[in-house]
Amino acid sequence: MRSVAILGIGQTKIGEHWDKSLREIGGEAAFAAIQDAGTDKVDALFIGNMLSSTVSAQNQLGAFFADWIGLWRQEAVKVEAACASGAAALRAALMAVSAGDIDTALVVGVEKMSDKTGHDVTSALATAADADYELEQGISFVGLNALMMRRYMHEFGWKHEDFAPFSINAHANATLNPFARLHEKITVEKFERSAMIATPINLLDASPTGDGAAAVVIVPAEKVASLNGKPRITVAGSASATDSIAIHSRKDPLFLSAAYESAKRAYEMANVTPKDIQVFELHDAFTIMAALSLEACGFAERGQGVRLGLDDRIGPKGRVPVCTRGGLKARGHPVGATGIYQIVEVVQQLRGECRATQVDGARIGMAQNIGGSGATILTHILKTG
Amino acid sequence: MRSVAILGIGQTKIGEHWDKSLREIGGEAAFAAIQDAGTDKVDALFIGNMLSSTVSAQNQLGAFFADWIGLWRQEAVKVEAACASGAAALRAALMAVSAGDIDTALVVGVEKMSDKTGHDVTSALATAADADYELEQGISFVGLNALMMRRYMHEFGWKHEDFAPFSINAHANATLNPFARLHEKITVEKFERSAMIATPINLLDASPTGDGAAAVVIVPAEKVASLNGKPRITVAGSASATDSIAIHSRKDPLFLSAAYESAKRAYEMANVTPKDIQVFELHDAFTIMAALSLEACGFAERGQGVRLGLDDRIGPKGRVPVCTRGGLKARGHPVGATGIYQIVEVVQQLRGECRATQVDGARIGMAQNIGGSGATILTHILKTG
Repeated sequence: MRSVAILGIGQTKIGEHWDKSLREIGGEAAFAAIQDAGTDKVDALFIGNMLSSTVSAQNQLGAFFADWIGLWRQEAVKVEAACASGAAALRAALMAVSAGDIDTALVVGVEKMSDKTGHDVTSALATAADADYELEQGISFVGLNALMMRRYMHEFGWKHEDFAPFSINAHANATLNPFARLHEKITVEKFERSAMIATPINLLDASPTGDGAAAVVIVPAEKVASLNGKPRITVAGSASATDSIAIHSRKDPLFLSAAYESAKRAYEMANVTPKDIQVFELHDAFTIMAALSLEACGFAERGQGVRLGLDDRIGPKGRVPVCTRGGLKARGHPVGATGIYQIVEVVQQLRGECRATQVDGARIGMAQNIGGSGATILTHILKTG
Repeated sequence: MRSVAILGIGQTKIGEHWDKSLREIGGEAAFAAIQDAGTDKVDALFIGNMLSSTVSAQNQLGAFFADWIGLWRQEAVKVEAACASGAAALRAALMAVSAGDIDTALVVGVEKMSDKTGHDVTSALATAADADYELEQGISFVGLNALMMRRYMHEFGWKHEDFAPFSINAHANATLNPFARLHEKITVEKFERSAMIATPINLLDASPTGDGAAAVVIVPAEKVASLNGKPRITVAGSASATDSIAIHSRKDPLFLSAAYESAKRAYEMANVTPKDIQVFELHDAFTIMAALSLEACGFAERGQGVRLGLDDRIGPKGRVPVCTRGGLKARGHPVGATGIYQIVEVVQQLRGECRATQVDGARIGMAQNIGGSGATILTHILKTG
């Protein structure tokens, strides 16, 4: 694989953007990334999106956005892998640049969710699960995660409040991220008293969805000579793996084998171990997923992911800083865009732009994007230099 | 780009498969291609599909099919570009194999359309157009094509019956393809008397949709030593280009600039000209698209595409054999699968397996897959040797 560098990043504030269309949100992030990259040449466009066909009656987002942002005649395509659509689009773009056919690729993760009612969006999100064997039973996506969390608590003896540190850390970090959806610190008390959604998952275990887009411009690393003093950031590891789409088909529903597998391949490719990872933007769609991700990626023993939070190790000054810009929990989770927000945030850390939530001396960071209840998982490792 | 060979092909008969699910249809084609390739090792799966999120409430088809066909833990992803989803998935796979990260990739184009009513499918297909500026006016996808056809007839002075040879050729060829949806020869009289859909497009101008899947297994060409006497078939050219998603934004609505651009790049990459193409599986979703595709790819002058049919040059023994297995018109158009059916059919021609519709001595073939009314167009050129 030809080494690839991330030349520019862009993102929009996440929220309910009643005044902006799908076009406008994606375009805003795309132009921000192009401007940040300082290039006016883009050879190909890769879009990560999950819901536009159902929420906006719009498919073919590759051509749709190439048209909108003026990439006339250029190659463009959409990649979909449920909530992992963003990272999957990045990986497709990495392959294209690596193959040598394309030099400069723009990758945009975009989602416009607020144009439908909550009921419609819940139905649309449920398409990430197995329609024949899960949805047919009437279970929602949060319901599936609730089953995993309850089983985890039973199996390993944790109480609900033991998950609080994940949300508290995410909310605290988001207050310093202007692009985050939520800017409100929370406490254990507030976490425990929050409204129940699907027991044991309550409102503060769950990430808020929203409208948002994030973008990166990637180029062959060899073409990046000077960046006006900014460090050059390369993709040192990239891997994707799958698991059964239905949770009940897994030998062990509490082990994210696709996270394990994709992290393992990414570590090997980057020639690092979990110890070397200085910042980890993980996929905390629900607090349980944060715990399971930390375990599968080698940061904690089985059933001990929550301990990292309780031991105060997940903050920006901790041993395994996670969700340093707010994570899905507080930055927000515009599903198909999330994977690119994570990449953008790791780049911000490696550039040293995160002020009070900056991880000191961060040179190696990781992002992990999860589709469905663990069926598609991509891991990317970025490095300076 | 590392040279890539097509090692195996598979397809299902197109029809209304009330007895088979999305899973089963895609799996059938996947297993057929794996068996044909004679390999039991697949590193990654690429799915081309447009409609499963709306028709089958199923997203994340990469993991969905990796799970179903037993590619446990492997990388898998879905690519979408409306009716060009199949070829777009192939191109993503080509990039991945070219990049060197992956050796054996399985590409499946799959669509299950008959589980919804015609009205719902018409709405779902309309997401290929511009939701804000075309759909908002209430126009359907066939309506957009009808506007193009009417303008073409006005501009260049053709009558409706002048388009008949495209459908007659497709139907005649399909009678010899066991996987085709329609097995019925037609005449000019029948063509002219067929039911009007959206004037001037009648039923026999339009391709039938359907349930179906097609698949190919690709590997680095250098790894293909011997194929038991079958010719080695390589991808000599691959290119994708876009145009505005809305027809009204184009300078000239009767020129498929993305077809021109992608064909031009594919010709350059394969080092051939239109004269060298011995078989051309084009995207005849409507007869007008066959004419426009032939013109944009350099087989006819502007406004003269229909003349190739009238001059009897598009049959298997003609100068530009098109739709040799029935084309979209009679083989059928399971939208996200069509691009892979076209590739499978070009491979069948290059292998010399097409009996009475065999193009004598075919060594170079082309397939062109069109998304929307010309917004995303991919061109692939295959060669023996």
